[in-house]
Amino acid sequence: MQAGKPILYSYFRSSCSWRVRIALALKSIDYEMIPINLIKDGGQQLAIIEYLEETRPTPRLLPQDPKKRALVRMISDLIASGIQPLQNLSVLNQVGQENQLTWAQKVITSGFNALEQILRSTAGKYCVGDEVSMADLCLVPQVANAERFKVDFTPYPTISHINKTLLALEAFQVSHPCRQPDTPPELRA
Amino acid sequence: MQAGKPILYSYFRSSCSWRVRIALALKSIDYEMIPINLIKDGGQQLAIIEYLEETRPTPRLLPQDPKKRALVRMISDLIASGIQPLQNLSVLNQVGQENQLTWAQKVITSGFNALEQILRSTAGKYCVGDEVSMADLCLVPQVANAERFKVDFTPYPTISHINKTLLALEAFQVSHPCRQPDTPPELRA
Repeated sequence: MQAGKPILYSYFRSSCSWRVRIALALKSIDYEMIPINLIKDGGQQLAIIEYLEETRPTPRLLPQDPKKRALVRMISDLIASGIQPLQNLSVLNQVGQENQLTWAQKVITSGFNALEQILRSTAGKYCVGDEVSMADLCLVPQVANAERFKVDFTPYPTISHINKTLLALEAFQVSHPCRQPDTPPELRA
Repeated sequence: MQAGKPILYSYFRSSCSWRVRIALALKSIDYEMIPINLIKDGGQQLAIIEYLEETRPTPRLLPQDPKKRALVRMISDLIASGIQPLQNLSVLNQVGQENQLTWAQKVITSGFNALEQILRSTAGKYCVGDEVSMADLCLVPQVANAERFKVDFTPYPTISHINKTLLALEAFQVSHPCRQPDTPPELRA
Protein backbone atom coordinates (compact mmCIF):
# COMPACT_ATOMS: atom_id res chain seq x y z
CA MET A 1 0.00 0.00 0.00
CA GLN A 2 2.89 2.36 0.72
CA ALA A 3 4.10 1.83 -2.85
CA GLY A 4 1.37 3.71 -4.66
CA LYS A 5 -1.66 5.93 -4.24
CA PRO A 6 -4.56 4.19 -2.54
CA ILE A 7 -7.50 3.49 -4.79
CA LEU A 8 -11.07 4.14 -3.66
CA TYR A 9 -13.81 2.32 -5.50
CA SER A 10 -16.51 4.92 -5.13
CA TYR A 11 -20.06 5.67 -6.16
CA PHE A 12 -21.01 9.34 -5.98
CA ARG A 13 -24.36 8.74 -4.31
CA SER A 14 -23.36 6.01 -1.86
CA SER A 15 -23.37 7.25 1.71
CA CYS A 16 -20.81 4.54 2.56
CA SER A 17 -18.38 5.84 -0.07
CA TRP A 18 -18.98 9.39 1.08
CA ARG A 19 -17.96 8.55 4.66
CA VAL A 20 -14.61 7.33 3.38
CA ARG A 21 -14.14 10.31 1.07
CA ILE A 22 -14.56 12.64 4.06
CA ALA A 23 -11.97 10.67 6.04
CA LEU A 24 -9.51 10.83 3.16
CA ALA A 25 -10.05 14.58 2.78
CA LEU A 26 -9.65 15.22 6.52
CA LYS A 27 -6.41 13.25 6.59
CA SER A 28 -5.19 14.91 3.35
CA ILE A 29 -4.59 11.56 1.74
CA ASP A 30 -4.11 11.73 -2.00
CA TYR A 31 -5.97 8.88 -3.70
CA GLU A 32 -7.18 7.60 -6.99
CA MET A 33 -10.89 7.14 -7.42
CA ILE A 34 -12.41 4.45 -9.55
CA PRO A 35 -16.12 5.15 -9.88
CA ILE A 36 -18.26 2.05 -9.87
CA ASN A 37 -21.96 2.00 -10.34
CA LEU A 38 -22.73 -1.03 -8.24
CA ILE A 39 -21.67 -0.63 -4.69
CA LYS A 40 -21.40 -3.09 -1.88
CA ASP A 41 -23.86 -1.82 0.66
CA GLY A 42 -23.69 -1.87 4.41
CA GLY A 43 -21.31 -0.38 6.88
CA GLN A 44 -18.22 -2.19 5.68
CA GLN A 45 -16.49 1.07 4.87
CA LEU A 46 -16.08 1.63 8.62
CA ALA A 47 -13.30 -0.96 8.37
CA ILE A 48 -11.55 1.34 5.88
CA ILE A 49 -11.95 4.31 8.22
CA GLU A 50 -10.54 2.39 11.19
CA TYR A 51 -7.64 1.26 8.99
CA LEU A 52 -6.94 4.85 7.94
CA GLU A 53 -7.07 5.91 11.57
CA GLU A 54 -4.47 3.32 12.53
CA THR A 55 -2.11 3.92 9.63
CA ARG A 56 -2.59 7.70 9.29
CA PRO A 57 -3.45 8.85 12.80
CA THR A 58 -3.45 12.61 12.15
CA PRO A 59 -5.88 14.26 12.44
CA ARG A 60 -7.56 11.72 14.66
CA LEU A 61 -11.10 10.60 13.88
CA LEU A 62 -11.46 8.78 17.20
CA PRO A 63 -10.92 10.57 20.52
CA GLN A 64 -8.09 9.43 22.76
CA ASP A 65 -10.32 8.65 25.75
CA PRO A 66 -11.77 5.09 25.57
CA LYS A 67 -15.20 6.18 26.82
CA LYS A 68 -15.43 8.93 24.24
CA ARG A 69 -14.20 6.50 21.57
CA ALA A 70 -17.00 4.16 22.57
CA LEU A 71 -19.51 7.00 22.17
CA VAL A 72 -18.15 7.79 18.70
CA ARG A 73 -18.35 4.14 17.69
CA MET A 74 -21.83 3.75 19.19
CA ILE A 75 -23.13 6.67 17.14
CA SER A 76 -21.31 5.45 14.02
CA ASP A 77 -22.74 1.96 14.44
CA LEU A 78 -26.22 3.27 15.13
CA ILE A 79 -26.09 4.90 11.69
CA ALA A 80 -24.00 2.34 9.81
CA SER A 81 -25.74 -0.75 11.19
CA GLY A 82 -29.04 0.55 12.56
CA ILE A 83 -30.20 2.92 9.82
CA GLN A 84 -28.28 2.84 6.53
CA PRO A 85 -28.59 -0.91 5.78
CA LEU A 86 -32.36 -0.75 6.23
CA GLN A 87 -32.85 1.94 3.62
CA ASN A 88 -30.29 0.99 1.01
CA LEU A 89 -31.14 0.24 -2.58
CA SER A 90 -31.21 -3.55 -2.36
CA VAL A 91 -33.64 -3.48 0.58
CA LEU A 92 -35.87 -0.89 -1.09
CA ASN A 93 -36.00 -3.08 -4.18
CA GLN A 94 -37.19 -5.94 -2.01
CA VAL A 95 -40.03 -4.01 -0.33
CA GLY A 96 -41.55 -3.05 -3.68
CA GLN A 97 -41.94 0.28 -5.48
CA GLU A 98 -45.13 1.47 -3.77
CA ASN A 99 -43.81 0.90 -0.23
CA GLN A 100 -40.33 2.38 -0.64
CA LEU A 101 -40.90 5.91 0.60
CA THR A 102 -42.93 4.84 3.65
CA TRP A 103 -40.40 2.13 4.52
CA ALA A 104 -37.40 4.45 4.21
CA GLN A 105 -39.05 7.21 6.23
CA LYS A 106 -40.02 4.73 8.93
CA VAL A 107 -36.56 3.24 9.42
CA ILE A 108 -34.84 6.62 9.25
CA THR A 109 -37.16 8.37 11.71
CA SER A 110 -36.97 5.42 14.06
CA GLY A 111 -33.16 5.66 14.00
CA PHE A 112 -33.12 9.45 14.16
CA ASN A 113 -35.38 9.43 17.23
CA ALA A 114 -32.69 7.47 19.07
CA LEU A 115 -29.86 9.49 17.53
CA GLU A 116 -31.34 12.88 18.45
CA GLN A 117 -31.62 11.76 22.09
CA ILE A 118 -28.02 10.52 22.18
CA LEU A 119 -26.61 13.63 20.50
CA ARG A 120 -28.31 15.90 23.01
CA SER A 121 -26.00 14.50 25.65
CA THR A 122 -22.83 13.96 23.60
CA ALA A 123 -22.68 16.87 21.16
CA GLY A 124 -20.63 20.00 21.28
CA LYS A 125 -20.05 21.64 17.92
CA TYR A 126 -20.03 18.14 16.43
CA CYS A 127 -21.49 14.73 17.34
CA VAL A 128 -19.14 14.10 20.25
CA GLY A 129 -17.69 17.28 21.70
CA ASP A 130 -15.91 19.84 19.57
CA GLU A 131 -13.75 17.64 17.39
CA VAL A 132 -14.77 16.04 14.12
CA SER A 133 -14.95 12.27 14.54
CA MET A 134 -15.97 9.13 12.70
CA ALA A 135 -19.52 9.75 13.98
CA ASP A 136 -19.67 12.96 11.94
CA LEU A 137 -18.51 11.09 8.84
CA CYS A 138 -21.52 8.84 9.28
CA LEU A 139 -23.99 11.60 10.18
CA VAL A 140 -23.76 13.87 7.14
CA PRO A 141 -24.27 11.19 4.45
CA GLN A 142 -27.19 9.76 6.44
CA VAL A 143 -28.86 13.18 6.74
CA ALA A 144 -28.50 13.58 2.96
CA ASN A 145 -30.28 10.22 2.51
CA ALA A 146 -33.02 11.39 4.87
CA GLU A 147 -33.47 14.54 2.83
CA ARG A 148 -33.79 12.52 -0.36
CA PHE A 149 -36.56 10.54 1.33
CA LYS A 150 -38.24 13.79 2.46
CA VAL A 151 -37.97 13.06 6.18
CA ASP A 152 -39.43 15.83 8.36
CA PHE A 153 -36.57 17.34 10.38
CA THR A 154 -38.69 19.27 12.88
CA PRO A 155 -38.12 16.69 15.66
CA TYR A 156 -34.35 16.69 15.04
CA PRO A 157 -32.91 20.13 15.83
CA THR A 158 -29.63 18.72 17.17
CA ILE A 159 -29.06 16.52 14.13
CA SER A 160 -29.90 19.43 11.80
CA HIS A 161 -27.63 21.86 13.57
CA ILE A 162 -24.59 19.57 13.66
CA ASN A 163 -25.14 18.63 10.03
CA LYS A 164 -25.18 22.28 8.99
CA THR A 165 -21.99 23.02 10.94
CA LEU A 166 -20.23 20.04 9.33
CA LEU A 167 -21.30 20.92 5.81
CA ALA A 168 -19.42 24.19 6.17
CA LEU A 169 -16.13 22.27 6.42
CA GLU A 170 -13.98 21.81 3.31
CA ALA A 171 -13.60 18.02 3.77
CA PHE A 172 -17.36 17.55 3.74
CA GLN A 173 -17.73 19.73 0.64
CA VAL A 174 -15.07 18.20 -1.61
CA SER A 175 -16.39 14.73 -0.78
CA HIS A 176 -20.03 15.65 -1.44
CA PRO A 177 -21.99 13.49 -3.91
CA CYS A 178 -22.73 16.57 -6.04
CA ARG A 179 -19.01 17.04 -6.77
CA GLN A 180 -17.75 13.60 -7.73
CA PRO A 181 -16.29 12.48 -11.07
CA ASP A 182 -19.24 10.15 -11.61
CA THR A 183 -21.92 12.67 -10.61
CA PRO A 184 -24.32 13.05 -13.54
CA PRO A 185 -24.50 16.65 -14.89
CA GLU A 186 -28.07 17.23 -13.66
CA LEU A 187 -27.03 16.51 -10.05
CA ARG A 188 -23.90 18.64 -10.00
CA ALA A 189 -23.62 21.68 -7.79
CA MET B 1 -16.64 1.84 35.62
CA GLN B 2 -13.64 0.63 37.61
CA ALA B 3 -15.67 0.99 40.79
CA GLY B 4 -18.02 -1.94 40.28
CA LYS B 5 -18.81 -4.90 38.11
CA PRO B 6 -19.86 -3.97 34.61
CA ILE B 7 -23.52 -4.57 33.85
CA LEU B 8 -24.63 -6.15 30.59
CA TYR B 9 -28.22 -5.61 29.55
CA SER B 10 -28.73 -8.85 27.71
CA TYR B 11 -31.39 -10.85 25.92
CA PHE B 12 -30.65 -14.55 25.64
CA ARG B 13 -31.63 -14.82 21.98
CA SER B 14 -30.12 -11.59 20.68
CA SER B 15 -27.13 -12.23 18.45
CA CYS B 16 -25.84 -8.76 19.37
CA SER B 17 -25.87 -9.57 23.09
CA TRP B 18 -24.25 -12.93 22.40
CA ARG B 19 -21.30 -11.28 20.64
CA VAL B 20 -20.59 -9.25 23.77
CA ARG B 21 -21.05 -12.23 26.08
CA ILE B 22 -18.38 -14.11 24.12
CA ALA B 23 -16.00 -11.14 24.40
CA LEU B 24 -16.57 -10.93 28.16
CA ALA B 25 -15.98 -14.66 28.54
CA LEU B 26 -12.79 -14.60 26.45
CA LYS B 27 -11.42 -11.71 28.48
CA SER B 28 -12.50 -13.34 31.77
CA ILE B 29 -14.39 -10.23 32.80
CA ASP B 30 -16.77 -10.77 35.68
CA TYR B 31 -20.06 -8.98 35.03
CA GLU B 32 -23.61 -8.65 36.17
CA MET B 33 -26.31 -9.49 33.68
CA ILE B 34 -29.65 -7.75 33.58
CA PRO B 35 -31.88 -9.64 31.18
CA ILE B 36 -34.19 -7.45 29.16
CA ASN B 37 -36.78 -8.67 26.81
CA LEU B 38 -36.69 -5.78 24.38
CA ILE B 39 -33.34 -5.31 22.82
CA LYS B 40 -31.92 -2.51 20.75
CA ASP B 41 -31.09 -4.11 17.46
CA GLY B 42 -28.25 -3.47 15.07
CA GLY B 43 -24.54 -3.72 15.38
CA GLN B 44 -24.13 -1.21 18.17
CA GLN B 45 -22.63 -3.81 20.46
CA LEU B 46 -19.46 -3.64 18.34
CA ALA B 47 -18.80 -0.37 20.17
CA ILE B 48 -18.82 -2.30 23.45
CA ILE B 49 -16.41 -4.88 22.03
CA GLU B 50 -14.00 -2.19 20.78
CA TYR B 51 -14.21 -0.52 24.21
CA LEU B 52 -13.42 -3.80 25.95
CA GLU B 53 -10.51 -4.33 23.59
CA GLU B 54 -9.05 -0.93 24.46
CA THR B 55 -9.55 -1.16 28.19
CA ARG B 56 -8.91 -4.91 28.63
CA PRO B 57 -6.47 -5.74 25.84
CA THR B 58 -5.74 -9.36 26.83
CA PRO B 59 -6.48 -11.66 25.09
CA ARG B 60 -6.68 -9.49 22.00
CA LEU B 61 -9.76 -9.67 19.79
CA LEU B 62 -8.13 -7.61 17.04
CA PRO B 63 -4.80 -8.64 15.47
CA GLN B 64 -1.81 -6.35 15.87
CA ASP B 65 -1.23 -5.88 12.14
CA PRO B 66 -3.37 -3.04 10.67
CA LYS B 67 -4.20 -4.96 7.49
CA LYS B 68 -5.33 -7.99 9.44
CA ARG B 69 -7.31 -5.71 11.79
CA ALA B 70 -9.04 -4.27 8.72
CA LEU B 71 -9.93 -7.79 7.58
CA VAL B 72 -11.38 -8.60 11.00
CA ARG B 73 -13.42 -5.39 11.00
CA MET B 74 -14.54 -5.92 7.41
CA ILE B 75 -15.88 -9.37 8.24
CA SER B 76 -17.47 -8.10 11.48
CA ASP B 77 -19.14 -5.22 9.64
CA LEU B 78 -20.31 -7.46 6.84
CA ILE B 79 -22.22 -9.45 9.46
CA ALA B 80 -23.16 -6.64 11.89
CA SER B 81 -24.19 -4.13 9.22
CA GLY B 82 -24.76 -6.18 6.10
CA ILE B 83 -26.70 -9.17 7.41
CA GLN B 84 -27.96 -8.96 10.99
CA PRO B 85 -29.91 -5.66 10.73
CA LEU B 86 -31.81 -6.95 7.69
CA GLN B 87 -33.15 -10.02 9.48
CA ASN B 88 -33.81 -8.68 12.93
CA LEU B 89 -37.19 -8.77 14.59
CA SER B 90 -38.28 -5.21 13.84
CA VAL B 91 -37.58 -5.62 10.11
CA LEU B 92 -39.30 -9.00 9.98
CA ASN B 93 -42.34 -7.44 11.62
CA GLN B 94 -42.39 -4.83 8.88
CA VAL B 95 -42.26 -7.31 5.99
CA GLY B 96 -45.32 -9.19 7.22
CA GLN B 97 -45.81 -12.68 8.63
CA GLU B 98 -46.11 -14.57 5.34
CA ASN B 99 -42.90 -13.11 3.86
CA GLN B 100 -40.64 -13.42 6.90
CA LEU B 101 -38.93 -16.73 6.17
CA THR B 102 -38.26 -15.94 2.50
CA TRP B 103 -36.98 -12.47 3.38
CA ALA B 104 -34.65 -13.71 6.12
CA GLN B 105 -33.29 -16.54 3.97
CA LYS B 106 -32.68 -14.15 1.09
CA VAL B 107 -30.71 -11.56 3.08
CA ILE B 108 -28.71 -14.20 4.95
CA THR B 109 -27.76 -16.23 1.87
CA SER B 110 -26.86 -13.07 0.00
CA GLY B 111 -24.56 -12.07 2.87
CA PHE B 112 -23.18 -15.59 3.35
CA ASN B 113 -22.31 -15.86 -0.35
CA ALA B 114 -19.98 -12.88 0.10
CA LEU B 115 -18.76 -14.09 3.49
CA GLU B 116 -17.89 -17.61 2.29
CA GLN B 117 -15.75 -16.12 -0.50
CA ILE B 118 -13.92 -13.81 1.89
CA LEU B 119 -13.32 -16.51 4.50
CA ARG B 120 -11.78 -18.82 1.90
CA SER B 121 -8.89 -16.39 1.62
CA THR B 122 -8.66 -15.16 5.24
CA ALA B 123 -9.42 -18.21 7.39
CA GLY B 124 -7.09 -20.44 9.27
CA LYS B 125 -8.65 -22.28 12.18
CA TYR B 126 -10.86 -19.23 12.66
CA CYS B 127 -12.19 -16.37 10.50
CA VAL B 128 -8.83 -14.61 10.19
CA GLY B 129 -5.88 -16.90 10.74
CA ASP B 130 -5.53 -19.05 13.83
CA GLU B 131 -6.54 -16.61 16.54
CA VAL B 132 -10.05 -15.91 17.76
CA SER B 133 -11.06 -12.37 16.77
CA MET B 134 -14.04 -10.02 16.80
CA ALA B 135 -15.04 -11.54 13.45
CA ASP B 136 -15.59 -14.90 15.17
CA LEU B 137 -17.75 -13.23 17.82
CA CYS B 138 -19.97 -12.03 14.99
CA LEU B 139 -19.93 -15.27 13.00
CA VAL B 140 -21.27 -17.75 15.53
CA PRO B 141 -24.41 -15.81 16.54
CA GLN B 142 -25.19 -15.12 12.88
CA VAL B 143 -24.87 -18.79 11.96
CA ALA B 144 -27.29 -19.59 14.79
CA ASN B 145 -29.75 -17.11 13.31
CA ALA B 146 -29.31 -18.71 9.89
CA GLU B 147 -30.06 -22.12 11.39
CA ARG B 148 -33.23 -20.77 12.99
CA PHE B 149 -34.32 -19.58 9.55
CA LYS B 150 -33.45 -22.99 8.04
CA VAL B 151 -30.81 -21.69 5.65
CA ASP B 152 -29.20 -24.45 3.53
CA PHE B 153 -25.52 -24.62 4.51
CA THR B 154 -24.36 -26.78 1.58
CA PRO B 155 -22.79 -23.77 -0.24
CA TYR B 156 -20.99 -22.65 2.92
CA PRO B 157 -18.43 -25.30 3.94
CA THR B 158 -15.93 -22.74 5.24
CA ILE B 159 -18.52 -20.93 7.37
CA SER B 160 -19.81 -24.25 8.74
CA HIS B 161 -16.36 -25.55 9.57
CA ILE B 162 -15.19 -22.41 11.40
CA ASN B 163 -18.49 -22.25 13.29
CA LYS B 164 -18.09 -25.82 14.49
CA THR B 165 -14.51 -25.20 15.62
CA LEU B 166 -15.57 -22.09 17.53
CA LEU B 167 -18.51 -23.77 19.24
CA ALA B 168 -16.07 -26.18 20.85
CA LEU B 169 -14.52 -23.29 22.80
CA GLU B 170 -15.62 -22.62 26.38
CA ALA B 171 -16.29 -18.89 25.79
CA PHE B 172 -18.73 -19.65 23.01
CA GLN B 173 -20.51 -22.26 25.10
CA VAL B 174 -21.04 -20.31 28.34
CA SER B 175 -22.34 -17.36 26.31
CA HIS B 176 -24.72 -19.48 24.23
CA PRO B 177 -28.42 -18.45 24.14
CA CYS B 178 -29.42 -21.87 25.47
CA ARG B 179 -27.55 -21.25 28.73
CA GLN B 180 -28.59 -17.74 29.79
CA PRO B 181 -30.51 -16.74 32.93
CA ASP B 182 -33.44 -15.57 30.79
CA THR B 183 -33.50 -18.66 28.53
CA PRO B 184 -36.98 -20.21 28.79
CA PRO B 185 -36.90 -23.82 30.08
CA GLU B 186 -37.98 -25.34 26.74
CA LEU B 187 -34.95 -23.80 24.99
CA ARG B 188 -32.35 -24.78 27.56
CA ALA B 189 -29.60 -27.23 26.71
